[in-house]
Amino acid sequence: MTQNRIKIVENILNANDHLANENRRRLSQHDIFSINLMASPGSGKTSFILATIKALIADAYQIGVIEGDTAPVTIDSDKINAAGMPAVQINTGGECHLDAVMVENALNQLPLDALDLVIVENVGNLICPAAWQLGTHSNILIASVPEGDDKPYKYPNIYRGLDVLIINKIDLLPYIDFDMDYFRRGVEILNPGLRSFPVSCTTGEGIDDWFHWLKAKLS
Amino acid sequence: MTQNRIKIVENILNANDHLANENRRRLSQHDIFSINLMASPGSGKTSFILATIKALIADAYQIGVIEGDTAPVTIDSDKINAAGMPAVQINTGGECHLDAVMVENALNQLPLDALDLVIVENVGNLICPAAWQLGTHSNILIASVPEGDDKPYKYPNIYRGLDVLIINKIDLLPYIDFDMDYFRRGVEILNPGLRSFPVSCTTGEGIDDWFHWLKAKLS
Repeated sequence: MTQNRIKIVENILNANDHLANENRRRLSQHDIFSINLMASPGSGKTSFILATIKALIADAYQIGVIEGDTAPVTIDSDKINAAGMPAVQINTGGECHLDAVMVENALNQLPLDALDLVIVENVGNLICPAAWQLGTHSNILIASVPEGDDKPYKYPNIYRGLDVLIINKIDLLPYIDFDMDYFRRGVEILNPGLRSFPVSCTTGEGIDDWFHWLKAKLS
Repeated sequence: MTQNRIKIVENILNANDHLANENRRRLSQHDIFSINLMASPGSGKTSFILATIKALIADAYQIGVIEGDTAPVTIDSDKINAAGMPAVQINTGGECHLDAVMVENALNQLPLDALDLVIVENVGNLICPAAWQLGTHSNILIASVPEGDDKPYKYPNIYRGLDVLIINKIDLLPYIDFDMDYFRRGVEILNPGLRSFPVSCTTGEGIDDWFHWLKAKLS
């Protein structure tokens, strides 16, 4: 990288962090708890959000969702709308992560006064989103059993910045060679004491513990 | 993006494409067929390479492997070495894709005179690798059944540039809601007539068709 390019990237990241702080202040002022949900493609982010909505609706919570994709699709936001909650779809135009400007624009389209929780579903990617703060209160990663047990070792940066780890698709453990101890050792080195929830969005196993944690944040 | 930044990115991509052409010429001069193997994290790239090595060794082919990771790990190159073939590990230092310079440096460390095939295992990512030519003869993507059937719709750029598509982990189809027709329609829109191989590296199902295709390229 040239010095010139490094300087430009640094300036962009600093401007992003400043705007992320503004987003966080704005969400807090509305008494909204917010999540930056990151994961590899196909880890079950949208299914996890839908399960969370279903559980929270029972307690009359209101959830807004921001859906990031690299292409002009509405597959995920359509699912959120069908579940009865407002969703804003962001098309990054090929960019490999969301940033604070995109989230600011999406927040402008959500009924913030009415919401208790905002979940931002980041672009499916274990690398680029790690460097970009969005201004949410919590960075959460979904690791998925079929991805394999070596991912913390191969994608350390994203694990270092996490507040919570969801280990999804545990219903597939009998069919896949996944060493949970090896996986957890890798996580522990990068992020000691990280709170984690092993779940299956298909069978519902383990997911009540996640709901319990989340509801404590909303109350 | 500022005009300045756009110009810098364009210059970098042009320089990369020039060097990629040099890599391809060098590989062809050594009578080596080469593959840029892309995929999401945990799609089974390394298992697929190991299965391919095992099948080709029987016919006395020699295979060199270049392993790309964002962190200083040797998990994958150790596996290739254990299978009896030379491997070079690239640590991108957090960068989200390989580029032609990294591949050039790795080629300098491989015994090119002795090789028939070079497989470059790119960083696990469905977005960034699409924009960076490495100088291989064939761009191949592994799509994995647990990732879900909507990935062509969400990550179109990487599907557009493919020569071959591997659909891996078909042994998990009974346990996952994956609509193969929906998936294939998405692929067909982006890359009409794309050659694809549904396989399971676990059970071996379908993989002979891939070996047959590859051996025809090597002969």
